[in-house]
Amino acid sequence: MLRQVALEDTHAVAIGAGILGTGGGGNTYLGRIWLEQELRQRGVNCTIIAADDVADDAMVCAIGTMGAPTVGIEKLLRGSEFVTALRTLEDHIGSSFAALVVSEIGGSNGLRPLIAGLQLGLPVVDGDGMGRAFPELQMDTFAIGGVPLTPMALADSHGNAVVFHHLDSPLKAEQYARSLTVELGGSAALAMPVMSGEQLKRFVIRGTLSLAKRMGDVVLASRLRGADAADEVASLANGRVLFRGKVVDVERRTTRGFARGTLTIAPFGGADEVMDIVFQNENLVAWLGGEVVCTVPDLICILNLEDGEPIGTELLRYGLRVAVLGLPAPIELKTPEALAVVGPEAFGYPAIPFQPLPGNLL
Amino acid sequence: MLRQVALEDTHAVAIGAGILGTGGGGNTYLGRIWLEQELRQRGVNCTIIAADDVADDAMVCAIGTMGAPTVGIEKLLRGSEFVTALRTLEDHIGSSFAALVVSEIGGSNGLRPLIAGLQLGLPVVDGDGMGRAFPELQMDTFAIGGVPLTPMALADSHGNAVVFHHLDSPLKAEQYARSLTVELGGSAALAMPVMSGEQLKRFVIRGTLSLAKRMGDVVLASRLRGADAADEVASLANGRVLFRGKVVDVERRTTRGFARGTLTIAPFGGADEVMDIVFQNENLVAWLGGEVVCTVPDLICILNLEDGEPIGTELLRYGLRVAVLGLPAPIELKTPEALAVVGPEAFGYPAIPFQPLPGNLL
Repeated sequence: MLRQVALEDTHAVAIGAGILGTGGGGNTYLGRIWLEQELRQRGVNCTIIAADDVADDAMVCAIGTMGAPTVGIEKLLRGSEFVTALRTLEDHIGSSFAALVVSEIGGSNGLRPLIAGLQLGLPVVDGDGMGRAFPELQMDTFAIGGVPLTPMALADSHGNAVVFHHLDSPLKAEQYARSLTVELGGSAALAMPVMSGEQLKRFVIRGTLSLAKRMGDVVLASRLRGADAADEVASLANGRVLFRGKVVDVERRTTRGFARGTLTIAPFGGADEVMDIVFQNENLVAWLGGEVVCTVPDLICILNLEDGEPIGTELLRYGLRVAVLGLPAPIELKTPEALAVVGPEAFGYPAIPFQPLPGNLL
Repeated sequence: MLRQVALEDTHAVAIGAGILGTGGGGNTYLGRIWLEQELRQRGVNCTIIAADDVADDAMVCAIGTMGAPTVGIEKLLRGSEFVTALRTLEDHIGSSFAALVVSEIGGSNGLRPLIAGLQLGLPVVDGDGMGRAFPELQMDTFAIGGVPLTPMALADSHGNAVVFHHLDSPLKAEQYARSLTVELGGSAALAMPVMSGEQLKRFVIRGTLSLAKRMGDVVLASRLRGADAADEVASLANGRVLFRGKVVDVERRTTRGFARGTLTIAPFGGADEVMDIVFQNENLVAWLGGEVVCTVPDLICILNLEDGEPIGTELLRYGLRVAVLGLPAPIELKTPEALAVVGPEAFGYPAIPFQPLPGNLL
């Protein structure tokens, strides 16, 4: 497994996190240049540890940003937000964190704990609570497992910090934090949940940071060879390429703190079955010729055929030539309890059953 | 001055707080029956102390509810909200409060610290930060004087509690807390600001709880005699009756957490000059025959001519026969610093200069 992230690893990790982002989780280019700057300035590498290296009674906390990816690429963070959120939370609970946790490996949220770890001198656990990205904060294995989402802290670029001390349901945590994030300008640093090492080990999806690195390595190696990385990336995560084609329509709107919309991809050559995908920050459901071929929690990942770069929701545009990957969700997301929170019905598609792709992400 | 509030005092205090509410601050009937229930159940009276009785280094905190009065009369509080907010704040700062402070004497917010004081066994200071009610939380003498609004705590009926740990401006405190209050259902308990006794003594408007009691006593005594209390109430606060007439039009909407609107009052008999009043929770500007006769921060108070009861924004309706009182603002609200926050321009009326009524409230 990954033991550290150095300057020469950032590109691969960013690409892999972008792929696992399934369209969301925040723009990894911006996350990567920020991470690289921190690595250069501090002259130390990010320390990565296994979940099992964390003591049962140690306190850990996940960190990421909340907000729509379409906002995140225009409203850059200042750099101090994660530290503000984490320190505020430490002050509130009266103890210090021993390690940081990735809340969602997908997108720039997969990189941000690395940045915060450098800023605070803390190691980061190889794993996360989603194995991908999801749009809402109750959608992780920690919340699904029953770890309280509060106390949690939200902080913005002006040093404003708010602690959600107690909220009576994960859905309210999502609703209130989202609402405040919109007031804060559409993106903010979010530190949550606070966990013991014992809780972390019980619920974390292990090894997803390492998986991101492996995926990125494949993309970069293929790029050097001028090869299409899609099949090899898909096989790394036990998935397959669902479709190759050209984006011919994107309808996108940023409402209530989310980037929502649909896109249509037409096949190359004479075939006439198009692929339609709907997204809420992340890609949710893919139809091929009107038939559902992949749904949440399985991963629908869009790669640029030119260079294998993952394409986030905020960068989708007419004319892009893409491969659409379907990757099976991690096994932790396929329990009945998890599917109630991250299955198609939870996203407003009660009529679409979850028909899992074969296998598991890891 | 008032030394305690017993069961036999609640009606007068509620009426006086209603008058000083200038239309807002929350429905005092509901506040009063809650206060009476607490007094009966606990069998002790509310202890009232003078601001000068608080030690310089003691910590005190103001408490009230945030939200539109139109919401407050339909969505009743559970009863535990103030304790939740105050205890959350005590936990966060790591010290206990020695006394509670009225944030705004006007409306039910003038009664709620009495309820919280009974629940927590704490005395309440005779005075407040407004000498009336205002719609936004940066509009008090504490914020105007420079007391930080954070940390502040917001709590709802489900035990949900949020601490605003640091916010870089009073306007943001208002904006974020208002937004979250809307999410919480339109009304919530708000504990803020945390102050030292020294800060309290520097900025509080003294004696406003006693003034409310005196006003209520006059109304109740007049009612027994079948007399119109308006002139006597006005003179208690150095003001005068601006108009008597019948409400002939009310336009009211609850938007973004506020009750906003206009009302028109026609005179009795043959006169044709009507009075128009605009409000944002509280009455802001009164025009008589198109001429401005009273503006914030001076108090525009509407009394029912039948019984002298103050009429809140949420209860205005066609046909009510009313007296409109103009009371001069407390002197603390008439400094240039205060007028920048609570003068007509701050409420969106830059073309209307503040021409103060003669004298001061106290």
